[in-house]
Amino acid sequence: MEKKFQSLSVPRRVLLGPGPSNVPPEVLQAMALPVIGHLDPAFLAIMEEVQAMLRTVFATTNRFTIPISATGSAGMEAALVNAIERGDKALVCVNGVFGVRMCDIVERAGGELKKIEAEWGTPFQPDQVRDALKNFPAAIVAIVHAETSTGVLQPLEEISRIVHDHGALFVVDAVTSLGGTPVNVDDRKIDVCYSGTQKCLSCPPGLSPITFSDSAIEKLKSRTSKVQSWYLDMTMIEKYWGPERVYHHTAPISMIYALREALRLALDEGLESRFDRHRRLSAQLIDGLEKMGLEMLVDRKYRTPMLNAVKIPCGVDEAVLRKRLLERYGIEIGAGLGPLKGKIWRIGLMGHSCAEENISLILSALKSLL
Amino acid sequence: MEKKFQSLSVPRRVLLGPGPSNVPPEVLQAMALPVIGHLDPAFLAIMEEVQAMLRTVFATTNRFTIPISATGSAGMEAALVNAIERGDKALVCVNGVFGVRMCDIVERAGGELKKIEAEWGTPFQPDQVRDALKNFPAAIVAIVHAETSTGVLQPLEEISRIVHDHGALFVVDAVTSLGGTPVNVDDRKIDVCYSGTQKCLSCPPGLSPITFSDSAIEKLKSRTSKVQSWYLDMTMIEKYWGPERVYHHTAPISMIYALREALRLALDEGLESRFDRHRRLSAQLIDGLEKMGLEMLVDRKYRTPMLNAVKIPCGVDEAVLRKRLLERYGIEIGAGLGPLKGKIWRIGLMGHSCAEENISLILSALKSLL
Repeated sequence: MEKKFQSLSVPRRVLLGPGPSNVPPEVLQAMALPVIGHLDPAFLAIMEEVQAMLRTVFATTNRFTIPISATGSAGMEAALVNAIERGDKALVCVNGVFGVRMCDIVERAGGELKKIEAEWGTPFQPDQVRDALKNFPAAIVAIVHAETSTGVLQPLEEISRIVHDHGALFVVDAVTSLGGTPVNVDDRKIDVCYSGTQKCLSCPPGLSPITFSDSAIEKLKSRTSKVQSWYLDMTMIEKYWGPERVYHHTAPISMIYALREALRLALDEGLESRFDRHRRLSAQLIDGLEKMGLEMLVDRKYRTPMLNAVKIPCGVDEAVLRKRLLERYGIEIGAGLGPLKGKIWRIGLMGHSCAEENISLILSALKSLL
Repeated sequence: MEKKFQSLSVPRRVLLGPGPSNVPPEVLQAMALPVIGHLDPAFLAIMEEVQAMLRTVFATTNRFTIPISATGSAGMEAALVNAIERGDKALVCVNGVFGVRMCDIVERAGGELKKIEAEWGTPFQPDQVRDALKNFPAAIVAIVHAETSTGVLQPLEEISRIVHDHGALFVVDAVTSLGGTPVNVDDRKIDVCYSGTQKCLSCPPGLSPITFSDSAIEKLKSRTSKVQSWYLDMTMIEKYWGPERVYHHTAPISMIYALREALRLALDEGLESRFDRHRRLSAQLIDGLEKMGLEMLVDRKYRTPMLNAVKIPCGVDEAVLRKRLLERYGIEIGAGLGPLKGKIWRIGLMGHSCAEENISLILSALKSLL
């Protein structure tokens, strides 16, 4: 065998796209700790810590609060395939890529889908959900908290009340919001909430934190059919993360180390300070962009601080600009998706990437390239 | 927020269980490299390298050879839910935990399951498969190459011929065998083969290498229904790993770094040397165990070198012994599962853990404890 591959090296990037975000050195160092067994008492202790810290970050007392052993998209699938059975009615709110994906998963799971839509870049109004539920006794209502494809932050309180008035479970995608803006699972009575590690938690991608309310657990336990995915079957995974410690699959040890450290750093900073940092620096970025004559996609009232969608000025080759940002400045920003392709850039300020020096960097780079 | 969590530290262990195995320092260092974006040209180049090296390790020219973004168990699910549609007939060979799991997944996928069984600790004989296929026109036949729960290495050549004579796809679980003993996907005409990273590749757990033959791809493309799992839908994942680079989910960047380095180390050693090391050191371990009066579970002819199942002597409290091994020597070995619980220990010699000094260590530790 020829030895044609050299030892790996990677470029340094300033990650200001839709995720992953830059990972702090403490978290990277945790990834390099020696691997131990998934049933080792020392690892079981780490699992307990991760669960406790995740509860704090989700703002919940839900016992069943764990990281799924796959990325945020698997969290979406886990939420949906566990919460519904074949034939269950599911109302999905679509105003971006991730709402579209939810519909796809509901249909694969044999759910009876009803879809409501809002323009990409705008949130849902409570009345729209109320109307949709009138003649549709949904088992679940699913919505995205911070739409990564548009930068909309969806208000949840009023919609949650409507969902529960109709006796449905409230499923919320917090992939981009968790750790960057309050998710408040208990206060907002969210029944199933999932996230990813690579956004505002600034842990590498690979895990999906998820939490189930008592009502969601009750629904799960009263299922008449098995969850269609073995890997994402929460009735089994609960037995590994719970006191029984029944082997299900080998946990991704190093990723759990990393999440543990990422959560510790988030709690050390303090969640309120962290949310404030995201709000403050997003405002600073937008101020700079607007001074350059650029325009934001989303109305001020509904912008999510960690994902700033800015309209591409006429006559600019957006892909060339992103390429130059990457090659000359080492900065990654995101392109538009779906109907917003070629119309917006997505500038992420997530977790560790949400830093004052990165605002100056991206603003001056954009100034010189535009 | 009280700062009650300290920076993470973990004990050092000698991992001689059923996996994970010890991870070499080069691979751990790769995990600590800075995260870059999943669409960064530098990352796309790493993906190409990983695919090329995986093909060499699987001994295949299959274009579609990638790591799935979840652990080996997700690889099993991916193999089965992509290879069958509702109503498809599936023959599953069960002689251990992982065969049982395959049956569970086939049923969740709506497959028509036929199960054949061999005693745990023994392999299947070709005639048994031939007989089972006589009146059962299976779309797939699934079998485990190295059963981690028993230590049996299943001969595949003759069974592969029978499977193809009947026009079925041959699905093989190589979670424990890949990188430790020849898998030879092309020579053995395996249509879908999946593995895990944390066994003989000595990468942390978290990814599942998988490969699809042209026939398997053909079957996938001629499906009349969507794959039931969105996250594991290979028709979509193929578009991200292929030249189109269509976004599906965010790849677990750091894990891919680690796999890249683990594969590089395996190829640097040379696959033949690596297989030889596993064979030689397993023989040395067994020789030592037998000299202590211990007896192996599996007939010499069918033992898999990386997982050595040894019978527990009468009167020994097996759990106490494992606890002492861990606490006094930092050595992890595995317990028996299912019908073999309390009857065997499973001593793994996988990848980086398969080292001469570890043989001496485990033998002397066992001597002093028994």
